[in-house]
Amino acid sequence: MIFNTNLNAIATYQAGKPIEEVIRVYGIDAKNIIKLASNENPYGCSPLVSQAICANASKVSLYPDDSMVDLKEALAKKYNLNAEHFIIGAGSDQIIEFCIRAKCQQDSKILMAKTTFAMYEIYAKQSGCQIIKTKSDMHNLKEFKELYRMHHPDIIFLCVPNNPLGECLDFSEVHDFLKEIDKNTLVVLDGAYQEYATYRDVNKAILVDVVQEFENVVYLKTFSKIYGLGGMRLGYGIASEMIMEYLYKIRPPFNVSSLSLLCGIEALKDENFIQKSLEQNAIEMQKYEIFAQENKIKYIESFTNFITFFLENQKCKSSEIAEFLMQNGVIIRDLKSYGLNAIRITIGTLEQNLKVFSLLKEKIS
Amino acid sequence: MIFNTNLNAIATYQAGKPIEEVIRVYGIDAKNIIKLASNENPYGCSPLVSQAICANASKVSLYPDDSMVDLKEALAKKYNLNAEHFIIGAGSDQIIEFCIRAKCQQDSKILMAKTTFAMYEIYAKQSGCQIIKTKSDMHNLKEFKELYRMHHPDIIFLCVPNNPLGECLDFSEVHDFLKEIDKNTLVVLDGAYQEYATYRDVNKAILVDVVQEFENVVYLKTFSKIYGLGGMRLGYGIASEMIMEYLYKIRPPFNVSSLSLLCGIEALKDENFIQKSLEQNAIEMQKYEIFAQENKIKYIESFTNFITFFLENQKCKSSEIAEFLMQNGVIIRDLKSYGLNAIRITIGTLEQNLKVFSLLKEKIS
Repeated sequence: MIFNTNLNAIATYQAGKPIEEVIRVYGIDAKNIIKLASNENPYGCSPLVSQAICANASKVSLYPDDSMVDLKEALAKKYNLNAEHFIIGAGSDQIIEFCIRAKCQQDSKILMAKTTFAMYEIYAKQSGCQIIKTKSDMHNLKEFKELYRMHHPDIIFLCVPNNPLGECLDFSEVHDFLKEIDKNTLVVLDGAYQEYATYRDVNKAILVDVVQEFENVVYLKTFSKIYGLGGMRLGYGIASEMIMEYLYKIRPPFNVSSLSLLCGIEALKDENFIQKSLEQNAIEMQKYEIFAQENKIKYIESFTNFITFFLENQKCKSSEIAEFLMQNGVIIRDLKSYGLNAIRITIGTLEQNLKVFSLLKEKIS
Repeated sequence: MIFNTNLNAIATYQAGKPIEEVIRVYGIDAKNIIKLASNENPYGCSPLVSQAICANASKVSLYPDDSMVDLKEALAKKYNLNAEHFIIGAGSDQIIEFCIRAKCQQDSKILMAKTTFAMYEIYAKQSGCQIIKTKSDMHNLKEFKELYRMHHPDIIFLCVPNNPLGECLDFSEVHDFLKEIDKNTLVVLDGAYQEYATYRDVNKAILVDVVQEFENVVYLKTFSKIYGLGGMRLGYGIASEMIMEYLYKIRPPFNVSSLSLLCGIEALKDENFIQKSLEQNAIEMQKYEIFAQENKIKYIESFTNFITFFLENQKCKSSEIAEFLMQNGVIIRDLKSYGLNAIRITIGTLEQNLKVFSLLKEKIS
């Protein structure tokens, strides 16, 4: 059978190994496994979320409210915008897909950093788009501008802060950049880790007014990270009503489960949980930085809940270290698939991180 | 901004009105609203499902197991196939989308019945496909064959039983049809309501071996109907490994929530709930048929959990009746958007159906 020829170039996305797979493959007991591979919140989710799930556990036969008005209004209130500026997705991942499919056709051009979130490229290839990448691994706006002028891309992705490297552009830089971009180029600001960036340095904070100032900007947020809802698949996009009209044409009905919508509403109510998670993350992040310095591991200052260690000074390849950690029940992300001899570690809880330091020390020293 | 030009022809899907919207718009108390518009199971879901949701309500921060191996193995056991023959989607809706995007490109051709599940056409248009429809509203395989020979479509959709009309082809007819279709044409057998059809008439039962006999066939099933998981967004496709390779290239990672996967596993364990739901549906369906006969309402024998009433003999337009029912707290589906003066009513519980009969009698007599 002949399939969509665009798919021939696609390798399937390598998701972080779930605990279930490590149990299966390595025969390690579930309670001894630490998953620091997918940048989940190690403190779980707000108790309000769990309570709401339980209270509604017998109502799952009814389709979700496809208008999603309750969650959109809660978000509108949070951002002081109208609900019409929001679209809800099964993770902000799905909004990335909507953006590409709403804007692009065969041979459209998409510009991104060399090393950034892998799904931009996968969705782009599915739609038969040309992918243009900067030479630098990290976001370099000078290179972005040059490539923009040369190629006039249909979409530009800026991942702020950037996954999997952790660096983050200042908002003032992003804002200046946006002024130079024509109104027919869609600029996607992926803010999946924005809460962490803002907490560390307020200059990194994307001001939501950006979607009103620039009608060609989509700002993405997720409930999968600091809000602790990775399992529920919930994220959202904020943009002008002009963009929303087209994103909604791509959105399938009932794209988010009813419990997920409910979780989002409850999660937004518990600012205390968010603040505590941010504080703990900052404290533990500092330990990783000190560990790296003490062990001569190169790292990038991270504005997220993960840190990327480059292993050029070490004896080991990233795959070896990742495998060694996995055998000891610690799942991290090997960045070999990005062409880097590097590992990305989610900042865990105090106990989890102590285990990571101990294992890493054993392997790299 | 210039968007994907394929989207200009797309009208947004009209989902059945959720209870939340009726509360908002009509000011009716939630407990007085009966939703018979989206063919959900009126008996809810299995208690095993609710228990599992509650027991896992605090584990939502972790991403789902993207291999989905537990659910796929449960399905493999049910159908006596290998797990490699399955793909899980956010409703079987999402597998419809995967099929179209995996197989089709701009100007691919898709053949379907004139009046069938609306999402085939919407997803087809998103991908810039040409849509070919039979003249007959219901599935007419003679017309399908003629159009197949004339157009050599990339995909043929057979909805068995058909939503929103309720009729169902015999499996022997489907099987004979498949023999005439070349191996480069993907045939999607949408069996969202198969359990109801099989219960009413075993000749309607799609035998799953069909995906082994014909490597160009995808068989779709859902947890949204008889299994009572409409809110959780869960469905699946069964097909040859050749087809699976390409469907998996389109599938986004983590396309189904972790609780949804769990719900599917639990729902499969409770055959008793399914049997009771089927029995009750058959008893109540018969009441609708008798009501129609007594009131000279034209209807099609339905192999599903809904019935479609044609209003050509009545004084009312479908929109008037739908509006009247809505004002009285009963949500049904007006089929005006399908170009029919007809209404589709989900078969509810005994009490719900009594209210429907009483209101309908008031309006149409």
